[in-house]
Amino acid sequence: MSTVRAITAEAAARVDVHLMDPEKGGFKLEQLMELAGLSVAETAFQLVHERATVETGSRSGVVAVLCGPGNNGGDGLVAARHLTHFGLKPVVLVPKRVEREPFVGLMTQLRMLGVPSATLDDMDLILSDAVLVVDAVFGFSFKGQVRAPFDRVIKALKSHEHKTLSVDVPSGWDVEKGSTTADGFSPFALISLTAPKICSRQFKGRHFIGGRFVPLDEFNIDVPMYAGTQQSVEIANDSVV
Amino acid sequence: MSTVRAITAEAAARVDVHLMDPEKGGFKLEQLMELAGLSVAETAFQLVHERATVETGSRSGVVAVLCGPGNNGGDGLVAARHLTHFGLKPVVLVPKRVEREPFVGLMTQLRMLGVPSATLDDMDLILSDAVLVVDAVFGFSFKGQVRAPFDRVIKALKSHEHKTLSVDVPSGWDVEKGSTTADGFSPFALISLTAPKICSRQFKGRHFIGGRFVPLDEFNIDVPMYAGTQQSVEIANDSVV
Repeated sequence: MSTVRAITAEAAARVDVHLMDPEKGGFKLEQLMELAGLSVAETAFQLVHERATVETGSRSGVVAVLCGPGNNGGDGLVAARHLTHFGLKPVVLVPKRVEREPFVGLMTQLRMLGVPSATLDDMDLILSDAVLVVDAVFGFSFKGQVRAPFDRVIKALKSHEHKTLSVDVPSGWDVEKGSTTADGFSPFALISLTAPKICSRQFKGRHFIGGRFVPLDEFNIDVPMYAGTQQSVEIANDSVV
Repeated sequence: MSTVRAITAEAAARVDVHLMDPEKGGFKLEQLMELAGLSVAETAFQLVHERATVETGSRSGVVAVLCGPGNNGGDGLVAARHLTHFGLKPVVLVPKRVEREPFVGLMTQLRMLGVPSATLDDMDLILSDAVLVVDAVFGFSFKGQVRAPFDRVIKALKSHEHKTLSVDVPSGWDVEKGSTTADGFSPFALISLTAPKICSRQFKGRHFIGGRFVPLDEFNIDVPMYAGTQQSVEIANDSVV
């Protein structure tokens, strides 16, 4: 079986800087976020259809998307939009509003599409109802302690970890050390963007890779075996080295 | 069989203005172009694989992408980038360089990925070699007469129309009246973005719809039957009304 090398938070940050350097990659943040969010949505769609078929025979269902204040949250907002076009019913939970771009635009796009935006007061009810929870709270730039109100969010995620898909890094995990408490949050699925981060070596659930937009050779990153025009691919959970 | 209503150039322009109004749609041009270009790439990928299997038994091949100076050309540049990630070998032909965004960034992205950019001197050779030609020269805002050097480009496209996929509008066609000469350019495939334009009522080839990012109900536009997470869908060529 082929292996996939994990990268550090520092390497992931270097890739982003390179991609968005006008002289090097020439990308706008909005473009990268659009494609990252689309790969999250494709994965979420696949998981919903698998679970819905198994558990209820139905193909409908609410997807709760918890969005943090950084780029990981932005990926979640984009994913929620695409999920609507895919025929699902996302609800976004944004514990901390961010009044700068691209977040303002992403929220406007969801409003135009009629995607509900809920507050923390409704969080428990929405998470209980949801067929799938997308954890887009913290990504690879998260460091240190989880502060309010996100401590409450991660506690809620823990209660629903059996149906949670985390984006890039399970929220609250140290990007290199992983889960730092024995009874920590452990989502059933993870989508690593571009490449798995070091912490995912200890991840035991279903593991996907998304973000098919980086010239991987240039960064000495392993190329996952995407099929056809797919934006995400599942890898064996013991293949990360 | 269900029908799909065609829209005017004016209606298409109104949708774009609405989508990019910060108070209404909240989109950036780069986001919309990314998704439009991705739907073009998905369609091109499908056509290449069909043709390659039938004609040569091979799955590789050069895709020539001819890009005009407007947003249609931008969609083509994005499509070329995605085609590279899909494992194909695009070559972009840009008869007239545009020194403003998003074109400068899109060209930088292609350079980083190693996608060759050819000049008109190489056009005939590249079009002859290509397994598929993508016509992203003019879109729905084209009006009037085709001027140099694009007259030469459309003449070349005519010679390769049996393997040309046009983006949104076959280049040189009037967006409402269609082909205005009896022996005009007639591509074998067309991908309409968001909704077919009026001219496509007279189009007889394979017809796809892409651009799965518009809240269609809001604009009273027919929703095509996209499958799963697909970004483009083929419609019957006599279904446009």
